[in-house]
Formats: sequence, structure tokens, C-alpha cells
Amino acid sequence: MFVDLPVILLIEDNPDHILLIHEALTVNNIANEVKVVKDGQEALDYLFRNGKYSDPEKSPKPALIILDLKLPKVDGQEVLRIIKSNPELKQIPVVVLTTTTQEEEIAKCYKNGANSYVTKPVNPQEFFDKIRDLKIYWLVTNSLPEKD
Amino acid sequence: MFVDLPVILLIEDNPDHILLIHEALTVNNIANEVKVVKDGQEALDYLFRNGKYSDPEKSPKPALIILDLKLPKVDGQEVLRIIKSNPELKQIPVVVLTTTTQEEEIAKCYKNGANSYVTKPVNPQEFFDKIRDLKIYWLVTNSLPEKD
Repeated sequence: MFVDLPVILLIEDNPDHILLIHEALTVNNIANEVKVVKDGQEALDYLFRNGKYSDPEKSPKPALIILDLKLPKVDGQEVLRIIKSNPELKQIPVVVLTTTTQEEEIAKCYKNGANSYVTKPVNPQEFFDKIRDLKIYWLVTNSLPEKD
Repeated sequence: MFVDLPVILLIEDNPDHILLIHEALTVNNIANEVKVVKDGQEALDYLFRNGKYSDPEKSPKPALIILDLKLPKVDGQEVLRIIKSNPELKQIPVVVLTTTTQEEEIAKCYKNGANSYVTKPVNPQEFFDKIRDLKIYWLVTNSLPEKD
């Protein structure tokens, strides 16, 4: 049986975090496809299907975006603002996942249209567990929009 | 010790659902204050502090809104659109909680700025468990914006 599992786009530049998040997202035999892009410009190229991301088969529209804030080239807040200003992309839930716990940053994310704001725990096991909880909420408890 | 727990605004007209959701939100000794309004107009009166909701002490700004869609007087989609168009209110996460599983309705909610879309299970125990999961995600895993 072919099951069309939602594609998750992970926008993250820290290699250790990519490894840990990818592991937590694909655990328990729920093998969601996770696409990883490592800076803000690459994220926009993926979402707008520029250059190497032009093939919709290889670069499918994600059903969920996990976005770090401190990104090279284009800042996470700017990536968020662009996604949420675009009629085609704005319906995709964006979960901000970052180390920042500053109230102003949290408020700014929600004002820019972030669907949720999750902080990265320092402890790797807690980090892993939190990503697993995040995944269960967004893919099981929550209903995602259809791809198109 | 005084702990300022986030206030949840529940916008729901079905008395059975109000009872069940309220029970699930206040279980486990986490006694969040849950304010209940039963139609779309009352929701807007609460949020804009009109009439009997004019006292900010008695009608505090919620940190999380749980919104049914099929509401008397003002429809849930319209309430959502008004919240997410208002600079003071748009940062409050709105979780749509409804029986509708139609793709178009889900997409419309996300486009109108819903933070999350959760469907009500028919089975009361599953309904209760889902609300408990919803609560844990939004109050523990997720970071809410500060009240003001």
C-alpha cells in the first residue's frame, strides 16, 4: 500500500541539530520524508522551486516547515515573513524551533505568522523528546492542509 | 507562590463539548483559568472588552484561544479573520477545534491565520485524550507569547 506521508521541510544550519531532529522525526517507523536546507536563501529556493529545486517530484511542497531563526544568508524571521505573505505558501504550518527564549523574539514570530514557537533544550535527550512530541502533535493530533 | 498561569479562551456553543473540553483542560491539577464564550459575537466582545467584558481583571487577555467553527451570530471563520487582522490580537495562538474534516475548510482556516486545526473525535474518551494532548503541546512543548 502506498501511503503519501507528509513531507517535512527542515530549515536548520547546525549539523548536530539536523542529525538529532532528523532522527527524532523519522523514529518509530513513521518514515516521513524530511527535506533539509541549511540557510535562509536555500529555504526560499526550495519553496519557490528555483535552480536545483525546480522539479516538483524531487522537491515536493512540504506539509510542515520547521524553521530555525539564526540562519546564514537570509534570517529566519525574514523567511517566515516571506512564507506568510505568499498566498500559495501561507497555509503551510511553520513551527519555529530555536534556542532563543526572549519574549520579544517570541512575540515577533507570532506576529509574523508563526504557527508555533518551540525552544531547543540544551540536554540532547530532552531535545530529542521535544521533537518527538512536536512531531506527534503536528502529524497526529493536528490536521495539516492538503498539499495543493 | 503565585503562578500566573495562561488564560485560555474557549469559544464553543455545544454544552456537552464545553463540559468535556473544560474537564480535559483543567485535569492534572494544572488549573489554568478557562474562560468560556458561547457565540462569535460574545467572543469578539470578550476580546475587544465590550460591555460586561470591560474589566481587564475579570476578562484577562487570553494566551491561547480554542475556537469552534460553527458558531451562532458570528461564524468561527469570521472571528478568526478578525483576530488575525488585529495588531493587538494576532499574536495569540488560535487552535481551531471542530467536527469538520473537509479539506477546503482546513485550508481556509490556515489561510485565515489559524495556528492549528484539530478535529473533534466522536468517541468521548478519544475527544478527552485529544484535548489533553492539545493542552500539553500548547502549554508545555510550545512557548506562548507573553500577555502584553
